Amino acid sequence: MNIYLDCIPCFLRQALDAARNITEDSRVHEQIVREVLRLAADLDLSRPPPWVGQIIYRRLRELTGVEDPYRAAKSRLNRLAVSMLPELRAVVKRAPHPLIAAAKAAIAANVIDLGVRSVLSEDEAREALRESYATDVYGDFAELQRQVAEAREILYLADNAGEIAVDRLLIEQLGPERVTLAVRGEAVINDATIDDARAAGLHELVRVIDNGSDAPGTILEDCSAEFLERFNQADLIIAKGQGNFETLSEVDTDIVFLLKVKCPVIAEHVRLPVGTHAVLGRKGGGLASRVTVEGPP
Amino acid sequence: MNIYLDCIPCFLRQALDAARNITEDSRVHEQIVREVLRLAADLDLSRPPPWVGQIIYRRLRELTGVEDPYRAAKSRLNRLAVSMLPELRAVVKRAPHPLIAAAKAAIAANVIDLGVRSVLSEDEAREALRESYATDVYGDFAELQRQVAEAREILYLADNAGEIAVDRLLIEQLGPERVTLAVRGEAVINDATIDDARAAGLHELVRVIDNGSDAPGTILEDCSAEFLERFNQADLIIAKGQGNFETLSEVDTDIVFLLKVKCPVIAEHVRLPVGTHAVLGRKGGGLASRVTVEGPP
Repeated sequence: MNIYLDCIPCFLRQALDAARNITEDSRVHEQIVREVLRLAADLDLSRPPPWVGQIIYRRLRELTGVEDPYRAAKSRLNRLAVSMLPELRAVVKRAPHPLIAAAKAAIAANVIDLGVRSVLSEDEAREALRESYATDVYGDFAELQRQVAEAREILYLADNAGEIAVDRLLIEQLGPERVTLAVRGEAVINDATIDDARAAGLHELVRVIDNGSDAPGTILEDCSAEFLERFNQADLIIAKGQGNFETLSEVDTDIVFLLKVKCPVIAEHVRLPVGTHAVLGRKGGGLASRVTVEGPP
Repeated sequence: MNIYLDCIPCFLRQALDAARNITEDSRVHEQIVREVLRLAADLDLSRPPPWVGQIIYRRLRELTGVEDPYRAAKSRLNRLAVSMLPELRAVVKRAPHPLIAAAKAAIAANVIDLGVRSVLSEDEAREALRESYATDVYGDFAELQRQVAEAREILYLADNAGEIAVDRLLIEQLGPERVTLAVRGEAVINDATIDDARAAGLHELVRVIDNGSDAPGTILEDCSAEFLERFNQADLIIAKGQGNFETLSEVDTDIVFLLKVKCPVIAEHVRLPVGTHAVLGRKGGGLASRVTVEGPP
């Protein structure tokens, strides 16, 4: 997915919010805004939006010397999600279709994102997770089940810290032995890295790799050889969140995107309202057939 | 008031919204966004925000050849406000303090602004005007009454089309013979020009001049000699709206600002919540003493 003109004010707002979260030094705030303005003035709009996010957060790390400004927030979100796992797992186990129930929880957990909104309260996150089973999901769960049943090797692309702990429920349903979980190669926003996978105990359950990149998405040209090997070997890729959708939606392979639609640009791109929980497919060209799964699974 | 970093994403959003309102030509949308990005990258933040608005709307006129893209919207808003005048005037006449009641209506009418939000429904505007007398206003009406009682020459700086029709109620209370009403020199957003003053019949009631400028505010260096003469002669200036506040709040003369606080940057600047209806003074340095006038006057 390419950059829309509407993304540009949002890049600036995100850069400013992030700079203010990291430092009180107003010279840094002004410098990052001016740098993003210069970058955007000649921006190649055919790039995916996370390419700009990558540059912004990399520059913020350089300008402030803070390698992982969201470390404390990520730890807090991991603890929150891990503490809810027993309750969420019990619902999955009781569900008539545990795979669907776990996928619904994993999609709901995609709300845990400090990029689109820089503040998320623990109560909001907790509430979103508790309600996940009752939330309608737009997309074709039957197709997801079919693809999962046929897959030998599944590559699971995580999105955010906190969220990754809830992904565990879906990985348990997929069968961890055939799953490789991939996280970002370096800290960017609150995206999950190896540390966050460990915080959720996922390293004991499943093979965990990082993608070698510090983009808030999966820019294949920027990923490590090890990651690309897994990416090419997998016969099913499950990709979480907007950043992965924005960077991979036009890649011609079997990918299922699980995400919450959080911004108006993506909403328009996929023709779904902001706030929609969605399972979107990518097989050759179009999105998967669209079926709304209503109510508890 | 100078430009805040937070204004910059908003300039871009406004430029894009305005471009889309004027033309469907996506090349123009992209061009104006890239031009605003280049301008903003080296922007002198000590300028008032309407300086950027002036450049954006001037370039949009040049790029599209449309001199007054909001003409139809302005006519519609004028008709709406004029149609409500008998009802609003009746309330002013019945009020124990007609000057305050008229000022409250004039402040409420400042909601009619297509800059901050590019869409405003007629129902919203009508509702805001009907509720104006019951809306709390932050500021010192007693000080306004004192200054009005003492003034010999009042310069009234209008803000938007539609709103200007409601300003008529306040001008009637001020005594039209000592009032000069000033509008923008050229069309910019939905700001009132001579045409809008005429649409509300104000040319028959009061002396109407234009300020010679196409800025969405009052940038004195950009105004005509005739306007500056009035500005300097007046012993009281009543200035409507955010654009006039942003450009005149630091000018050392007797100005009373009547406005609705519509953006978070101004809200922070004046330390009032977004949505506040306010009477703000400028006498030497500070804002007038702050008193909330509650309920019907």
